[in-house]
Amino acid sequence: MALNKLLRPGLIQLRVLDLDKTLNFYKNILGLDEVCRTSDGRVCLKTYDEFDHHSVTLRLADTAGFDYAAFKVDSPETLEEMKEKTIKFGYAVDEVPANSNQPGFGKRYGFTICTGHRFEIYCDVELAEKGPQIKNPDIWTTPPRGMRAIRLDHFLLYGPNIEEAERFCKEVFGMYSPEVCNLPDGKRLATWLTSSNKPHDFAFVEYDKPGKIHHIGFYLENWTDVGNAADWMAIHRLKRDIGPTRHAITRGQTIYFWEPSGNRIEVYSGGYTAYPDNPLRIWDSDMLWRGLFYYEGEMLPSFLEIVT
Amino acid sequence: MALNKLLRPGLIQLRVLDLDKTLNFYKNILGLDEVCRTSDGRVCLKTYDEFDHHSVTLRLADTAGFDYAAFKVDSPETLEEMKEKTIKFGYAVDEVPANSNQPGFGKRYGFTICTGHRFEIYCDVELAEKGPQIKNPDIWTTPPRGMRAIRLDHFLLYGPNIEEAERFCKEVFGMYSPEVCNLPDGKRLATWLTSSNKPHDFAFVEYDKPGKIHHIGFYLENWTDVGNAADWMAIHRLKRDIGPTRHAITRGQTIYFWEPSGNRIEVYSGGYTAYPDNPLRIWDSDMLWRGLFYYEGEMLPSFLEIVT
Amino acid sequence: MALNKLLRPGLIQLRVLDLDKTLNFYKNILGLDEVCRTSDGRVCLKTYDEFDHHSVTLRLADTAGFDYAAFKVDSPETLEEMKEKTIKFGYAVDEVPANSNQPGFGKRYGFTICTGHRFEIYCDVELAEKGPQIKNPDIWTTPPRGMRAIRLDHFLLYGPNIEEAERFCKEVFGMYSPEVCNLPDGKRLATWLTSSNKPHDFAFVEYDKPGKIHHIGFYLENWTDVGNAADWMAIHRLKRDIGPTRHAITRGQTIYFWEPSGNRIEVYSGGYTAYPDNPLRIWDSDMLWRGLFYYEGEMLPSFLEIVT
Amino acid sequence: MALNKLLRPGLIQLRVLDLDKTLNFYKNILGLDEVCRTSDGRVCLKTYDEFDHHSVTLRLADTAGFDYAAFKVDSPETLEEMKEKTIKFGYAVDEVPANSNQPGFGKRYGFTICTGHRFEIYCDVELAEKGPQIKNPDIWTTPPRGMRAIRLDHFLLYGPNIEEAERFCKEVFGMYSPEVCNLPDGKRLATWLTSSNKPHDFAFVEYDKPGKIHHIGFYLENWTDVGNAADWMAIHRLKRDIGPTRHAITRGQTIYFWEPSGNRIEVYSGGYTAYPDNPLRIWDSDMLWRGLFYYEGEMLPSFLEIVT
Repeated sequence: MALNKLLRPGLIQLRVLDLDKTLNFYKNILGLDEVCRTSDGRVCLKTYDEFDHHSVTLRLADTAGFDYAAFKVDSPETLEEMKEKTIKFGYAVDEVPANSNQPGFGKRYGFTICTGHRFEIYCDVELAEKGPQIKNPDIWTTPPRGMRAIRLDHFLLYGPNIEEAERFCKEVFGMYSPEVCNLPDGKRLATWLTSSNKPHDFAFVEYDKPGKIHHIGFYLENWTDVGNAADWMAIHRLKRDIGPTRHAITRGQTIYFWEPSGNRIEVYSGGYTAYPDNPLRIWDSDMLWRGLFYYEGEMLPSFLEIVT
Repeated sequence: MALNKLLRPGLIQLRVLDLDKTLNFYKNILGLDEVCRTSDGRVCLKTYDEFDHHSVTLRLADTAGFDYAAFKVDSPETLEEMKEKTIKFGYAVDEVPANSNQPGFGKRYGFTICTGHRFEIYCDVELAEKGPQIKNPDIWTTPPRGMRAIRLDHFLLYGPNIEEAERFCKEVFGMYSPEVCNLPDGKRLATWLTSSNKPHDFAFVEYDKPGKIHHIGFYLENWTDVGNAADWMAIHRLKRDIGPTRHAITRGQTIYFWEPSGNRIEVYSGGYTAYPDNPLRIWDSDMLWRGLFYYEGEMLPSFLEIVT
Repeated sequence: MALNKLLRPGLIQLRVLDLDKTLNFYKNILGLDEVCRTSDGRVCLKTYDEFDHHSVTLRLADTAGFDYAAFKVDSPETLEEMKEKTIKFGYAVDEVPANSNQPGFGKRYGFTICTGHRFEIYCDVELAEKGPQIKNPDIWTTPPRGMRAIRLDHFLLYGPNIEEAERFCKEVFGMYSPEVCNLPDGKRLATWLTSSNKPHDFAFVEYDKPGKIHHIGFYLENWTDVGNAADWMAIHRLKRDIGPTRHAITRGQTIYFWEPSGNRIEVYSGGYTAYPDNPLRIWDSDMLWRGLFYYEGEMLPSFLEIVT
Repeated sequence: MALNKLLRPGLIQLRVLDLDKTLNFYKNILGLDEVCRTSDGRVCLKTYDEFDHHSVTLRLADTAGFDYAAFKVDSPETLEEMKEKTIKFGYAVDEVPANSNQPGFGKRYGFTICTGHRFEIYCDVELAEKGPQIKNPDIWTTPPRGMRAIRLDHFLLYGPNIEEAERFCKEVFGMYSPEVCNLPDGKRLATWLTSSNKPHDFAFVEYDKPGKIHHIGFYLENWTDVGNAADWMAIHRLKRDIGPTRHAITRGQTIYFWEPSGNRIEVYSGGYTAYPDNPLRIWDSDMLWRGLFYYEGEMLPSFLEIVT
């Protein structure tokens, strides 16, 4: 008996256009710490409150966007078991040897799901040198900076065939959906998936182009810190998409804006405590905008059209 | 594969001395809704945001205190499996038939653990008539009242032999400890246990008298609501124990006070997101007061001495 | 020696279209208390935290909008002195006898300024029966409701010739401007005026039609209450204009929406503490949108076009 | 016509014991900026949000405590007028020439009032180089640090004959008392005095020893920042007196603690908006503890006994 065997999204690798300018955002505005750089020039970062080696890797490229997300599982046995289940589900699996391209990380298995996104799973990762204290711990040691991001929280992926993706996440990853949005014909338009009590670890929106990422969400302590993040966004003239506002879906309090490379960032707080036995919350597609933006209750075209 | 099979503490039955005065507290100050009364005069209550039938039952008695706590599990199979494991662990199990004394609840199994507390497990409970919406849901429908309690969150039990109790919760309930406090000789003084990402579902403190409860914790949205709760406490002249303050343990923000019957209530917010793979946080017993009351950093005699 | 002789805007009379529906908003959503009704059917209201008899009067009419605002001054001597100064400034003054149409209010002098708005001044008003306590006071006695408005805070008027209006407010009312917005030719586009340490008691925007009101602002305790107000706005499907956001001008945190009769309401919190010796903050008209909506930084057409 | 001619407490000079350690507190924990040092080794500081040259001067000495507080008035005419009134009131006045010992400050007049405290008045002071922006201003430019103090807000003085001191402040400074606390025989035990809409600019408590200071209060943005300040206090092991709590008097939200030299610091937020026409709030001395510490409602001996 244990918690879900898939623990959480532990790592995301993103493509960025201007490393210095973008790093300045992640470090001095969002508030992440630089952990290390790889021999091929990628930069590894983490929040002040994450225990593991790093959670965000930035790679210089010609287009912004999503390389892959990696999920931590609870044991070597689960790692092998999920690999087998993934193959049985029908996705080809490759192996990334330990420490080969993400410092501190053990062996990872990778595969591309139907939406065109690469997912990876791993069970071993070194603890960060500068993680939270564990012996008579203070709540922090170095003061949180800027927007004071607490953790990599979730991401939203756009791609085709999200019904299969949802089924994969339930059958292989052991996740559940606290909320879904259906089209009038009953087909999924969007689904939120979690492996925990968080209202989502990631979400999918049905979209005709594969492999797109809509946003990466970082967790803040509360609505006052959402306001603080909005101040930082304004002072640094970051391009805002929407917010401060609240989602009815997840109930989170939020702002969306773009970092200097054009990846959309969400800073997010609150949200209900989800349980798998709670009734599924169902949104009709004509109510989705109210579900997404509870205060505005209206369509935001950029939210549909701009992905990386 | 699933989340932990033991979902959460779903019900607590408390003894109270003055039903009217105490009910006024739970309903109009703490903000719970009365769901129903039993034929023997007990009162069933829930928060505005809980889905299940009720979560708190008050029983008129000559002494205040803890009758039992009941935990929801994920399936009938788990219910039988945990019953068997409990018997194997060495505790005698009795059966409470469906709807026999808690309206809306299915069959429960009950047993007394080494600390002298009765625990129960169940898998079936009816949904409340006035739970959160599930179709294109608003975030609430009837405005939260008073202290605006969101859910029954956790409780702290005092009793003997908590090392065995911790072992029971891990082996039979599948829980884990994010934090513990040890005496200089390495013996447990206190342990926090969770079945989820909450930093605790309940906790134990080693104590020579069995079956005691230290407090029942209700969740609030944020530190601002902790301040609001303190205003209500002051205006209604409720006897305060400590707070508003922060725990270093769990990092929650909190106030402790006594309801009119003398049961200690905590209103609690925040707290980190716990994961079973995070390092165990260990407190030395001579640092426990700082762990409990991060701002005061000092012993509070009432906190040791007053239990019900 | 005394504080400014003009104390504050103490009363506003508004026209509304549907008295029942609109009253429901002011009482149960914004959180005002009904104080009394006049013989001609107007309704007098106040916030829970105001001492004086009432601060808002609603009058049923065919169009929504502004009837007049009345300002409390510190003494009968000031009342007569300001009357004389107003006449000297060039505005005709009429007298409204005590208790003639605003219950509890003493004699008022009224006049129409160049922007087409009627202003009144008075020095006597009865204390409300249900004002804040004054003997060993609790912070409140009846719990604040809904959006929990603390006081009538300010209003924004649209009309012609605001330079003269600003001069009137300085010379006759003794007010000062903490911030102004100028067109490229140096002409005033907008001016904020205060008689106190609040960043504004009211403001003017240059506009070709006289006598228009843009919004009435009510004060909330903090940004968390601005979020709470946004929840109420969403749940009750009030039409939103903008927010939650922050003004750079005044630094207030805010939402704008319309009450059921179409008067725009602002719920506002924070803002700096103004002093008359602080440097004047000057906005260029091409930066005004950033000044108004610090997070959006963009023009909001409705904000220019919709007035009542 | 103008606001009160005495604008605010603009400067306080304190004695400290260990300049480096104490400066570290004021700069890196409380969040003040060092403006300059004087030729005799004193250090001048200000908050990020104050316009004037500096507001706090620290002087190395053998005992901690209060040297003097200086108040800004609105004009050279007021300066001379208040000097004359002070002499008439019966206090000897001396003159401190411009720039003689407080860089950036014009001529000051000083005098010792009956409580044994030296007060000064001035009308000229240079603007700080790093004050808030005034042309299309951002809300801040350098991020607020640590406890994020917004301004020198108020102080509490202990000394004899506070009835005379209150009379002086009303007659000469033009201040008013929003709240007082009286002994059963009707004698003042404490009085809060303001020259503005703040609930207090300073306060007096009757005490047999002259010239004592109880605490210096700095303003924070809100209750969430009071919580943040408490985290900083705990992490840096500053000795706490009381809080986070709320005053019923002024309604402020607060913590008291000692800086490294032993001067008591209050970080304070909220508080009602005071007006001179509001009814005087009167506290009976046997209710004073509830007035001071609304949540605790009990005597705190250190609060009476420890002054510097």
